[in-house]
Amino acid sequence: MIYFNNDYAEGCHEKVLQALNETNLVQTPGYGEDDYCRRAGEKIRALCAAPEAAVHFLVGGTQANLTVIDAALRPHQGALCAVSGHINVHETGAVEATGHKVLTVPSDDGKITAAQVAAVVEAHRADASFEHTVQPKLVYISNPTELGTLYTLAELEELSKVCHGLGLYLFLDGARLGYGLAAKGNDVTMPDLARLCDVFYIGGTKVGALFGEAVVIPNPVLAEDFRYLIKQHGGMLAKGRLLGVQFDALMSDGLYFEIAARADALADRLRDTMAELGVPFLVPGVTNQLFPILPDSVLDTLSEQYVFCEQQRVDETHRAVRFCTSWATREAHVEALCRDLRRLLVGQF
Amino acid sequence: MIYFNNDYAEGCHEKVLQALNETNLVQTPGYGEDDYCRRAGEKIRALCAAPEAAVHFLVGGTQANLTVIDAALRPHQGALCAVSGHINVHETGAVEATGHKVLTVPSDDGKITAAQVAAVVEAHRADASFEHTVQPKLVYISNPTELGTLYTLAELEELSKVCHGLGLYLFLDGARLGYGLAAKGNDVTMPDLARLCDVFYIGGTKVGALFGEAVVIPNPVLAEDFRYLIKQHGGMLAKGRLLGVQFDALMSDGLYFEIAARADALADRLRDTMAELGVPFLVPGVTNQLFPILPDSVLDTLSEQYVFCEQQRVDETHRAVRFCTSWATREAHVEALCRDLRRLLVGQF
Amino acid sequence: MIYFNNDYAEGCHEKVLQALNETNLVQTPGYGEDDYCRRAGEKIRALCAAPEAAVHFLVGGTQANLTVIDAALRPHQGALCAVSGHINVHETGAVEATGHKVLTVPSDDGKITAAQVAAVVEAHRADASFEHTVQPKLVYISNPTELGTLYTLAELEELSKVCHGLGLYLFLDGARLGYGLAAKGNDVTMPDLARLCDVFYIGGTKVGALFGEAVVIPNPVLAEDFRYLIKQHGGMLAKGRLLGVQFDALMSDGLYFEIAARADALADRLRDTMAELGVPFLVPGVTNQLFPILPDSVLDTLSEQYVFCEQQRVDETHRAVRFCTSWATREAHVEALCRDLRRLLVGQF
Amino acid sequence: MIYFNNDYAEGCHEKVLQALNETNLVQTPGYGEDDYCRRAGEKIRALCAAPEAAVHFLVGGTQANLTVIDAALRPHQGALCAVSGHINVHETGAVEATGHKVLTVPSDDGKITAAQVAAVVEAHRADASFEHTVQPKLVYISNPTELGTLYTLAELEELSKVCHGLGLYLFLDGARLGYGLAAKGNDVTMPDLARLCDVFYIGGTKVGALFGEAVVIPNPVLAEDFRYLIKQHGGMLAKGRLLGVQFDALMSDGLYFEIAARADALADRLRDTMAELGVPFLVPGVTNQLFPILPDSVLDTLSEQYVFCEQQRVDETHRAVRFCTSWATREAHVEALCRDLRRLLVGQF
Repeated sequence: MIYFNNDYAEGCHEKVLQALNETNLVQTPGYGEDDYCRRAGEKIRALCAAPEAAVHFLVGGTQANLTVIDAALRPHQGALCAVSGHINVHETGAVEATGHKVLTVPSDDGKITAAQVAAVVEAHRADASFEHTVQPKLVYISNPTELGTLYTLAELEELSKVCHGLGLYLFLDGARLGYGLAAKGNDVTMPDLARLCDVFYIGGTKVGALFGEAVVIPNPVLAEDFRYLIKQHGGMLAKGRLLGVQFDALMSDGLYFEIAARADALADRLRDTMAELGVPFLVPGVTNQLFPILPDSVLDTLSEQYVFCEQQRVDETHRAVRFCTSWATREAHVEALCRDLRRLLVGQF
Repeated sequence: MIYFNNDYAEGCHEKVLQALNETNLVQTPGYGEDDYCRRAGEKIRALCAAPEAAVHFLVGGTQANLTVIDAALRPHQGALCAVSGHINVHETGAVEATGHKVLTVPSDDGKITAAQVAAVVEAHRADASFEHTVQPKLVYISNPTELGTLYTLAELEELSKVCHGLGLYLFLDGARLGYGLAAKGNDVTMPDLARLCDVFYIGGTKVGALFGEAVVIPNPVLAEDFRYLIKQHGGMLAKGRLLGVQFDALMSDGLYFEIAARADALADRLRDTMAELGVPFLVPGVTNQLFPILPDSVLDTLSEQYVFCEQQRVDETHRAVRFCTSWATREAHVEALCRDLRRLLVGQF
Repeated sequence: MIYFNNDYAEGCHEKVLQALNETNLVQTPGYGEDDYCRRAGEKIRALCAAPEAAVHFLVGGTQANLTVIDAALRPHQGALCAVSGHINVHETGAVEATGHKVLTVPSDDGKITAAQVAAVVEAHRADASFEHTVQPKLVYISNPTELGTLYTLAELEELSKVCHGLGLYLFLDGARLGYGLAAKGNDVTMPDLARLCDVFYIGGTKVGALFGEAVVIPNPVLAEDFRYLIKQHGGMLAKGRLLGVQFDALMSDGLYFEIAARADALADRLRDTMAELGVPFLVPGVTNQLFPILPDSVLDTLSEQYVFCEQQRVDETHRAVRFCTSWATREAHVEALCRDLRRLLVGQF
Repeated sequence: MIYFNNDYAEGCHEKVLQALNETNLVQTPGYGEDDYCRRAGEKIRALCAAPEAAVHFLVGGTQANLTVIDAALRPHQGALCAVSGHINVHETGAVEATGHKVLTVPSDDGKITAAQVAAVVEAHRADASFEHTVQPKLVYISNPTELGTLYTLAELEELSKVCHGLGLYLFLDGARLGYGLAAKGNDVTMPDLARLCDVFYIGGTKVGALFGEAVVIPNPVLAEDFRYLIKQHGGMLAKGRLLGVQFDALMSDGLYFEIAARADALADRLRDTMAELGVPFLVPGVTNQLFPILPDSVLDTLSEQYVFCEQQRVDETHRAVRFCTSWATREAHVEALCRDLRRLLVGQF
């Protein structure tokens, strides 16, 4: 079977593995207070043009989300996101388990607009019984979103302006950030993120690392005492250096961006093939995730050789599914899939 | 500098690293539902003679502690432990952050007795306003303890009997379990643990793995829906197979026990040398941790070459410190330290 | 100004006040362990034909909701309700503050159907990544709902059957229960509630008491250790007898039902007058709450003399508002309002 | 039976009851936004000489404690108190249920010293792994304490200075504040409390009200958004005016202080009688609580007519018990008890 179902089916990029091998027997202090973490942090600050930002390394995305949100909010405050936001639908209520409601706005493409944020906050403030409702205090967005879509720089600028104008924090979940930054047409850079967000993270788990996310906190208010919260939520690795070593490797010589660009290019090849064959998409996309709508019969045949992800039923004979490429995707597999799609789909649309 | 301050200063044992290297590009399902995890689980169940026990792999000790305790308790219930218990003193209130009070009993050696448990529970039940106090429902012990001491089989049998007689769960934190099982004079086995505890874990982070603890749950009540709780607390690795691969390696051919025995033997060598020189210990021990009481002047000299851990001041000129060996400790380092101790300590005690 | 905005603008019914006066200097044990509470509990059990049900008295609705839900759920479980459910929109995230997500289904009339519950639970169970989402375990309904609508006995039977068939608890928030039971056309009785729900409460605050809700727990699983949870959430009054005295008075000689029936009759008079004048309603209703849609100009005039509650804007010149009657509403005020409505509305619809 | 076991065995003072009767049918806005609450708040601010302080009315002590502490702390912070502090021993883990550890220092008399606070904070800051432990951020004291002892002004000044010097909040639980302020030898005033504490409360439940505590928040940082937290924790009464009416009555014409002084005088009479008879006390006291150590045989005889509270066994034939007076204690009962004590105790000590 060939796995296109997600971007975490393999271990890590060979250069990351090499770094882990080479440093394996070096003795370091624990809990992320080692030189590898320090060096990786420096590289990230430089890439973000944010010399004052705090950088912390966490093991995974849910852990990063719950720790950041718990650190940012007082008990009566909530996190606002698209109804499809990962924290709302796929983290077993991790944010609620820290005591905070996830507030949602509708979204078809996984994105949320500045106007939506403003409307929610203004409605809250105008409500005569506002103290009986959760106060929106942090806006959670993912970029790329759970549907593989991307924010433009103009959209992020607008979101940031509205959030800060209203006294809210802007938090960007970058579990797949590399695939977004490297995507065709993307106009957002790391320094933009550091300038516009109060906190965001650079996903490693899905972009070349064994595991790990680098949380960048440009807003010093959110950075205060952050390591206590990492520890409290069980996120402080005794061998914190494992994350430093990996991010040090990924952030060296543009590796992170190079492997993301390659995955995006392979996704584009799949996307172009499908488009050419007339396949409609649930949402248009430019990153490493594709959501084509295909006939059940075609999917049945494909599933004999390929693993993909069920997204949703569209009509009685079609469903939307997810195909992902990643840093580890082999070109030969993409070519095989393109070939099979051509064979199965000619004349279907 | 030579690090004797803890047992997590290096990466992982070479066989674990080799397994990670060899499996790196194999594609697997995510979230611990892969064959490596399945196989490691089977090996652990076999070693425990507990064919029905649930086995889950978590990233670290604090995470294991908070997830197990949160899974086990209703809101008004608390976890009872020695005042020196890791959950009480060194996890930034992780258990309290899940809503539960940590109840403590005094202890000089890090251990807790069946009589202490019985007394606390009986006092709670006899209290006229018992509903105004937290109900003790789970007993947390660590073995080896935070002070390197060990429970005997008889003590564990008694604790288990009292807990179960009173309707409490017995939870054993085995962050350093290997060093305990392999220690001279230990009479406890893995099947004993599975028979006597409701839940316990086999520490990997400190005993040869890069990271990871294997939580074993013989009591099916505690096993129910456990994966939801792992996910909710941010402990479910996308690449769960990393933990399976590591524990599969550690549990093969007795590797886990062999490397623990080697570390214990090196600790014994240090311990014997100190004893011979008349050095008193804060607590007597048989595992990989030593807590000698040494003159400040000696510690000052040692600290130029060795890293160790401050434990507590004993009097105006002496303090207790911690030296640890581990799977990675080099024999030459132990010999050098013994030599230096002899040189510095002759005639001191 | 005349207050029609809610059903808690006054203190308590004269008979309740009289009971508080008469018992004021009697000495009793604290924390609800007195004879008044015992007697009130007995009367409620008798009215419910539920001799084994636990009865506890809490101070208010939000407190009752959060305590019951926290007592019922494990950490990964959530409460399912209509999107308009009080716990979802008007309790400042009280349920989330206990760690649990509120899961919602759409609803126009404040009610939720058995089919909706079944669909949510089945979708959860069929989801390949079900452990990444919150497990629905309790269904929260309010009766009357926040929109003044009522469940029929058939609907409750169906909900109860589906919940219990799927292993979920059914929890009924009866903050305005009296006004529901006494409403024209209602076919649900107290014994029905005790038979069909796992837990429900009889609202006192809005139906004649100074404050207080009587939580009835027919399901013994949910009753276990409930007093600990009341205390933990700050809901255990030192002078618990205050609640016992009040419910003892309300449950004597049919007082609770009699004063509710009177309020419903006054609401019917308003409702009939409006209907006669052609006023449309946001939702049809039979209890003490009315949600007429009125022209802004009429509302402006009315607001000079009457206090009512804003509900929502309907179009550019009309909005829906809420009028409430209560046990304390004076007939003369209803008549005055009817008169003013006739004067202002003739020819408007 | 005559109840001396606590200070909440009756309802409320007649003037409070009268105020509730007189205002019963007045219509007011809900949730504490009425004129009674406003007026009571003004009176309290005036008595405290704290024109800017926020004043909120809560139903009971545990609720006040958990709401204040949850409002004040970030997730990794804890509340420091005497080991006998009410939040540590008698609130079913209410503070932990909001996610915060209660940190304790030893105390024989229920009090905590500035030196103890300084030592704990300095030890935390000096700890190399301080981020692995809970950060002390708020000091909780009760005055009078749970043992009936009182802080002197000098002690409070010192505590306040140390707390503020170290960046901690000082929170005073005044569940029995009246009995403290009115006690012989007390040198603390309401303006002192407002000047020295960041937040404190004036207990009503035990000092003349049916129920209710007035939380005074001189520190504006702690006052921010406080009403959201009251609502979230189920502490916002729909008929908030009930608390306003009661505190308005208690704070008028010195009623609160007058009834407290009377109770203290009756306690003094008991205390003097016992002292005269040679009875030793567990702790010396000046407020409405007494903790005499009496022979079991005497206690057995007394218990046929009087209800008192068990405190602790002192030796094989003696135990310490608690007698309380209150605003409601009848002089005749005190005289009867003195008489019986004389009869039973002559020649015993």
